[in-house]
Amino acid sequence: MGKTIVGAGSAEGLPLSEAVSAGGFLFLSGLVGFGPDGRIVPGGISAETDAIMAEAKRLLALGRGSLRDVVKVSVLLADAGEFDSFNTAYRRHFPESPPARISMSVGLTIDARVELDLIAYVGDIPARAEAP
Amino acid sequence: MGKTIVGAGSAEGLPLSEAVSAGGFLFLSGLVGFGPDGRIVPGGISAETDAIMAEAKRLLALGRGSLRDVVKVSVLLADAGEFDSFNTAYRRHFPESPPARISMSVGLTIDARVELDLIAYVGDIPARAEAP
Amino acid sequence: MGKTIVGAGSAEGLPLSEAVSAGGFLFLSGLVGFGPDGRIVPGGISAETDAIMAEAKRLLALGRGSLRDVVKVSVLLADAGEFDSFNTAYRRHFPESPPARISMSVGLTIDARVELDLIAYVGDIPARAEAP
Repeated sequence: MGKTIVGAGSAEGLPLSEAVSAGGFLFLSGLVGFGPDGRIVPGGISAETDAIMAEAKRLLALGRGSLRDVVKVSVLLADAGEFDSFNTAYRRHFPESPPARISMSVGLTIDARVELDLIAYVGDIPARAEAP
Repeated sequence: MGKTIVGAGSAEGLPLSEAVSAGGFLFLSGLVGFGPDGRIVPGGISAETDAIMAEAKRLLALGRGSLRDVVKVSVLLADAGEFDSFNTAYRRHFPESPPARISMSVGLTIDARVELDLIAYVGDIPARAEAP
Repeated sequence: MGKTIVGAGSAEGLPLSEAVSAGGFLFLSGLVGFGPDGRIVPGGISAETDAIMAEAKRLLALGRGSLRDVVKVSVLLADAGEFDSFNTAYRRHFPESPPARISMSVGLTIDARVELDLIAYVGDIPARAEAP
């Protein structure tokens, strides 16, 4: 088995790993805008996007990467009408060389406005694993 | 072209390959809970999840992998209200080092309760292709 | 950072790259059926699919690939009832060794009938980047 678990299991006790590294890529589980209290942050989609990016940075760093290494993002919106607000917030986190991206509105499994799915390429340096 | 077709074309005559191997990764087409008679198995989302995993194991084995090599799963639910039931069934198939995961509810293209999209990392061993 | 931007930023000024190459893979941003005038082409899902494939070929060529190198496609339909019409159009573009695929109906962020998400494997040849 050539995969490495990065980060912990889900904070909500779900059967998933926060991130998995394999073949130079880092696959993150879907991220929603949780605050330190384990609830979705108040303030709307802009605040949720910022919270997601903070968590993404933490996980990417555990895998020896950063936001600059993200190659693909899937954007899941609860309401497609918030696409413009989301883009304004998202753009600040990728000032240059943004990832490829796809966006859609779906039903989320938690009461949030946006969920992001990230794939990064961190190359052949072995990821630093963290015990769950 | 560096990709290898693994398994056959779709049993339903759809324009897709069951799985494709490239760069050490194995990409599986979306799986629903078909039974041996080509119909979605009865018994609800738990039975459908078990049927999906049986088929995933078969395809992963053709690509020289196993469920332990799965790095990312996208979970498509017809009804987000079945998320807990799904997780109970899914967890049994990944007792340790589960894949990264994202879940959402969408409209499926077949009358099923859940569809799974799997990516595995099987490394540089060439996959064993099977004639369609 | 081991990723290479392929193609330009989005024509609609969105914070995304048309395609990103890393680790031998090429990740394309979601494609809808834009015509030369920047609007969704008339003619329904078949015409939209053809327009998407023309654009996919252009981007794949920039990354030194072709449709034959596509390993995985995610099909986002605005209306699952158009699945058969879509398949008829899509099949013509993949006469052999089609990619693995998953299909679903979701809310698109633009008034189109179908959006496609493609991943190709182009191997270790460095992609030819194009200034945005």
